[in-house]
Amino acid sequence: MASGPSALTRLHGHLHETRLLGSISSALYYDQNTVMPAAGAAWRGEQLALLAAQMHARQSSAAYADLVAAAEVELGADAPPQRRRNLQLLRLELGRQRCLDPALVSALARAQSRGNAVWQDARARNDFAAFAPALKELITLRRQQASQLAAAEPVARSPWEVLAQPFEPDISKARLEELFIPLKTDLPALLERVASAVAVPSEPSAALPEALQEQLCAELLASWGYNAERCQRSRSAHPFSCTVGPQDFRITTRVVPGQPLSAFLATAHEWGHSLYEQGLPRGDDHWFPWPLGEATSMGVHESQSLFWECRVARSRAFAERWHARFGAALGSDPWGGTLGFWRALNPLRPGLIRVEADELSYCLHIVLRYELELALLEQDLPVEELPQQWNRRMGELLGLTPTTDRDGCLQDIHWAEGLFGYFPSYALGHLISAQVAETLERTLGPIEALIAAGDESSLRAWLGQSVWPLGRSVNGEQLVEQVTGRPLSAEPFLAYLRGKVASLTGMATP
Amino acid sequence: MASGPSALTRLHGHLHETRLLGSISSALYYDQNTVMPAAGAAWRGEQLALLAAQMHARQSSAAYADLVAAAEVELGADAPPQRRRNLQLLRLELGRQRCLDPALVSALARAQSRGNAVWQDARARNDFAAFAPALKELITLRRQQASQLAAAEPVARSPWEVLAQPFEPDISKARLEELFIPLKTDLPALLERVASAVAVPSEPSAALPEALQEQLCAELLASWGYNAERCQRSRSAHPFSCTVGPQDFRITTRVVPGQPLSAFLATAHEWGHSLYEQGLPRGDDHWFPWPLGEATSMGVHESQSLFWECRVARSRAFAERWHARFGAALGSDPWGGTLGFWRALNPLRPGLIRVEADELSYCLHIVLRYELELALLEQDLPVEELPQQWNRRMGELLGLTPTTDRDGCLQDIHWAEGLFGYFPSYALGHLISAQVAETLERTLGPIEALIAAGDESSLRAWLGQSVWPLGRSVNGEQLVEQVTGRPLSAEPFLAYLRGKVASLTGMATP
Repeated sequence: MASGPSALTRLHGHLHETRLLGSISSALYYDQNTVMPAAGAAWRGEQLALLAAQMHARQSSAAYADLVAAAEVELGADAPPQRRRNLQLLRLELGRQRCLDPALVSALARAQSRGNAVWQDARARNDFAAFAPALKELITLRRQQASQLAAAEPVARSPWEVLAQPFEPDISKARLEELFIPLKTDLPALLERVASAVAVPSEPSAALPEALQEQLCAELLASWGYNAERCQRSRSAHPFSCTVGPQDFRITTRVVPGQPLSAFLATAHEWGHSLYEQGLPRGDDHWFPWPLGEATSMGVHESQSLFWECRVARSRAFAERWHARFGAALGSDPWGGTLGFWRALNPLRPGLIRVEADELSYCLHIVLRYELELALLEQDLPVEELPQQWNRRMGELLGLTPTTDRDGCLQDIHWAEGLFGYFPSYALGHLISAQVAETLERTLGPIEALIAAGDESSLRAWLGQSVWPLGRSVNGEQLVEQVTGRPLSAEPFLAYLRGKVASLTGMATP
Repeated sequence: MASGPSALTRLHGHLHETRLLGSISSALYYDQNTVMPAAGAAWRGEQLALLAAQMHARQSSAAYADLVAAAEVELGADAPPQRRRNLQLLRLELGRQRCLDPALVSALARAQSRGNAVWQDARARNDFAAFAPALKELITLRRQQASQLAAAEPVARSPWEVLAQPFEPDISKARLEELFIPLKTDLPALLERVASAVAVPSEPSAALPEALQEQLCAELLASWGYNAERCQRSRSAHPFSCTVGPQDFRITTRVVPGQPLSAFLATAHEWGHSLYEQGLPRGDDHWFPWPLGEATSMGVHESQSLFWECRVARSRAFAERWHARFGAALGSDPWGGTLGFWRALNPLRPGLIRVEADELSYCLHIVLRYELELALLEQDLPVEELPQQWNRRMGELLGLTPTTDRDGCLQDIHWAEGLFGYFPSYALGHLISAQVAETLERTLGPIEALIAAGDESSLRAWLGQSVWPLGRSVNGEQLVEQVTGRPLSAEPFLAYLRGKVASLTGMATP
């Protein structure tokens, strides 16, 4: 037999090029959401659709299927489990891609790009009716996609479950129900307890100038390992994190007028995402650009951002370290001391906006979106009724009713880009973060003590050893079990919140 | 015969997709030069190389060649000249692409991207030796490219001429010699006259804060038709203009410490480029995405940027309108009145930096680069000798010697990206701008009077009728002849400069 590159080497080359194309889309997405002028949207949509079609062709071609099959034979059944896992993940994804009609792939990419543009405009003008047709089209296309993909699933899954797989591999509605019921039961009671025991802290009306907010965010990042050689921070309408290359990490934030802590907390959050990406295993041929070198699930991703936002930046010890800097930047102390500043970081009161929500109400925002997604995708809820259903459920879960759709069902970018099945990962992130943090504290001692000592680098180091290098060698729930020794549950999260509520309400009545 | 889309329709679709890919490269280039972190350069190089390989494959494939041939048959010899011109330009470009080895295309794209990164660093550290290997590699690759391309040229051309064709179609060294000799003869004498008659205006040492420079640039653009719906302005190390989509136009500038007029003039310049791009014919199937819808040459492109920079922003009337704004922004008047401000806009004294050069010395900077390019590409000048040759020629032409390579042969980005054959277009731009301006004044009256009346919109309208819509229906010299009724010459440019020198020196001795 003539010698030549092995099938695994050729497969590596193929995956490398796929990763290049995917990262070009990421760069265009970043550009679109930070600097692209509005009129560029249609052309950008065509560019992204072209790349999506190329990606789909690469990932579903007969040549690629042959390459995967040849690599499977070459690897053999005795290979180390991680190498076999790489091919198993490729095989699963290949099956999915080969179920999809290329015309649908292009149509979806175009509809997602158009959806983004229409949403930006509709949200600015608070005009749900202008957005509704784009949303309807996205629902129709995503349903078609779910129906095409269902054939490739190893087990029977509902349309919503099929669409959720890329974000949360192996997730089911039954498992989410199990995890969400304790949240739906316990969180409203905790919110009630805070409301009756603690006076609602009012946000300082004094505006913190944008330049100073930027400066505080830059200081935060510098103290958490931000390296301008490999990182870039920009502004966008909706904060996000994205990886453009193996040494090119971007995050964006926005300054919210009248909310001096918003950009700061969003920066902590997005940086947590980026740290996970930066810590994914890259060094070895097993990993990059193989599936094992990728993030395993959006829930795990979110657990890392929430860890830095909630466990670190919203902690008492962190408030003590940063209070003086904010006061100096503002030129006054509208919080009336460090305790007030800590309370402002943890308002623990229901609000209308998910990305501004505190840890008690956040998961209820997710429950609302999850249930509405199911209704839209699986229960024929007419799109026109979305605003009223949103407002009704918001009243039931959080006791609040939006007065505008901008503060209601138009607030998130996800559905505008056709991302159904994504929201529950945010709630899973809270649960995973809490359960992983329990384990971390068993090794390193209380997080508050480490933060008080200014030692966030040991937190980074522990996560960088225990969590980030796992890549996709395990799925989200397996990761939790491997790191913490127990199956994922809502209990550590609820226990953490009970503790926080106790200290906040305890503080309130000294 | 089975009916289906015509060959011309299929060709249109093919060109549309090519344009999408090309504009993705433009978006990545913009990102690279405005926000990409330095460590992202290697991956970005791979992304751009992948796109370049795809572009080359599309533009040289047998299928594409068949499509062009079928479209030629379908169109027939009786078709309108513009439609035939489209196919002639495609046929010429196809011949060139099919001469190129795909491996060379990829290697060049990688070397260009690496060259950019190495140059950024070497320039910052004033380290020519660090840049030399990248430059050598680019010269080697571009020579190879010239040798491969030579076979496709309709007439015999030297390597430099071959490489210059994409920037200045049909240009020859002999024609450049003809146009440049009067410049080399007359410009030093004019510089001498200014130096002996006018005290060199000193730049105000007071710094104009960046935020205020940005504000003045934004006001300038607003008054010249900038529309944020389709335009974006960013910062980069080297100002440039680029088109990312048919409705997506970007320009960049930089603030130069201690030079309060630099960003302002660069903004005027880049906006001139962008106006031309925005005014290219797009409405009709003949034009977009066909060759006729493209800019015809870099010389014509440059003539448009120079028109707005030199004929408008450096004019006496414009200085009178803007002097007070600059004084107000600075909080003082370091120019000592409007005349001083106008002189500061027109220093007319030799300097080391091309992009900061005035109208008298600018073309001498180009002559230096053109002659050194010829030496590097056709006369075996060793790269190591470039700094000393640069410095020697700079002394001869402008009477100045750089003390650092940063202010010498490392100042420009062009060679770092392998752009040989480009620089002469800048000088042609001055010549074309002056000759076109003469014609414009015959129709609209003196430019100074229009500016004094605040009526730059009539300048925009005239160029938008007379120049921009020609696209590639004519080459650069044909455009000049069509618009002005005469062949291109250096005389209108020199006449304009003599007039300017007369008024400046006249003013100096009232």
